[in-house]
Amino acid sequence: MKQEIKKIVIVGAGNVAWNLAKKLQVKQCYARNLDRAKEVAIRANAQYINDYNDLVKDADLYIISVADNAIHEVSEQLSKHISKESIVVHTSGTMPMEVLSNKIDNIGVFYPLQTFTKGKEVSWGEIPLFVEGNSKEVEQIIFNLAEKHSENPIILSSEKRKEIHISAVLVCNFTNHLYALAQKRLQKNNISFELLKPLIRESVGKMLDYKGDISDLQTGPAIRGDNKTTNAHLALLEEDSNLKEIYKTLSNSIFNGKF
Amino acid sequence: MKQEIKKIVIVGAGNVAWNLAKKLQVKQCYARNLDRAKEVAIRANAQYINDYNDLVKDADLYIISVADNAIHEVSEQLSKHISKESIVVHTSGTMPMEVLSNKIDNIGVFYPLQTFTKGKEVSWGEIPLFVEGNSKEVEQIIFNLAEKHSENPIILSSEKRKEIHISAVLVCNFTNHLYALAQKRLQKNNISFELLKPLIRESVGKMLDYKGDISDLQTGPAIRGDNKTTNAHLALLEEDSNLKEIYKTLSNSIFNGKF
Repeated sequence: MKQEIKKIVIVGAGNVAWNLAKKLQVKQCYARNLDRAKEVAIRANAQYINDYNDLVKDADLYIISVADNAIHEVSEQLSKHISKESIVVHTSGTMPMEVLSNKIDNIGVFYPLQTFTKGKEVSWGEIPLFVEGNSKEVEQIIFNLAEKHSENPIILSSEKRKEIHISAVLVCNFTNHLYALAQKRLQKNNISFELLKPLIRESVGKMLDYKGDISDLQTGPAIRGDNKTTNAHLALLEEDSNLKEIYKTLSNSIFNGKF
Repeated sequence: MKQEIKKIVIVGAGNVAWNLAKKLQVKQCYARNLDRAKEVAIRANAQYINDYNDLVKDADLYIISVADNAIHEVSEQLSKHISKESIVVHTSGTMPMEVLSNKIDNIGVFYPLQTFTKGKEVSWGEIPLFVEGNSKEVEQIIFNLAEKHSENPIILSSEKRKEIHISAVLVCNFTNHLYALAQKRLQKNNISFELLKPLIRESVGKMLDYKGDISDLQTGPAIRGDNKTTNAHLALLEEDSNLKEIYKTLSNSIFNGKF
């Protein structure tokens, strides 16, 4: 096993692969669909393939960046085609390291905590890179790679990585859904969502600058225990049972939580 | 009634009053607590009082910026002490205009859509100012004032204002709570919330730049229908029934909504 990772192959052609390929200057990209493999490969002038038999056999690192439920199968395929010396990692927030085939000696995780979109470059500097390895040696080698590409390389167990992923769902997926619900509700009332943007900018900005408990920043009717307003809102949401339930659940949590 | 508002009195000493006093260069500030009245008044070199008998009687505009449930009572007091020519507005997102005393001839609403904090100046330019008046004439006069202070002065009925306020609760109060819950959960696992901030910046930034349906931007296990991951998360949240319920409610809404 080489102490420094130089030759990297990426498997997958999704948002994470598209972004990692360029950052890590991969040498080869595999995807089932050759056009999609090409889309990722051209980011690093890499070779693109759709047949495992064409895989570079002696890369230092193979990165599996595919849907969670496909990771195991892909790693089984890799195990048949690559050198025993190579390291294989996946990039998933939720899957344990051990989902990777036990026929591979050196396994690990390389999980960048960011929301990626094809076509949109992200600024890598501040993105935390969570790494894990199945031996101290492997872990150190992956960590060194992470350190080269992020100001925030962090060794983290699969268990803790799951906690990070749940939190990411809360602060990224769920907040996006609340924005979408508000936009939909306003559209029905012929009010532009643009009007809310200064408010969103200010309140998120305030939170990002804050160093203490974010619950200190809580405002609104629920934290004030202002039942008159929350009940008036619930009455307005009578026809919209989904939004009503969300409103009730979150208001109760704010009121009862009080941390 | 004067066609242009020049002399303004503010009643209240909360976050909104503190911010408005300076922006509108009020002449006088009333609050029950004289120290708090002073805190607001000094923002505009205004006079501060805690006795209704000391009120300037001929101001063009009286702004009531107090808790929702106190607006009516304050307006009753004002009606005894001010000129019939004056206009009285409140600054609430939820209360109808008519909560103001019917002993006052000229009433309206002046609602800045922003989250305010004492001690933190906001940039007023882009903040929408929603106005309403009980006659075309009053409404126009208040609108003119709003136009002087905001790039976004908007005449809006009490009904529509309520919709704006519900949406503000979703995008401001509820998202803050989700950030707070994530922070609390991570603290329990000795993981710093700072690590999530690049992700939050990126995902909110993406949403703010987007001109289409925000639901297009939805990512995460729920929208993918990835039950394996959502069930794994729910299992991890078993001990935390509050967060578990929120997770379930929002995930279902994302999955079923699909707009």
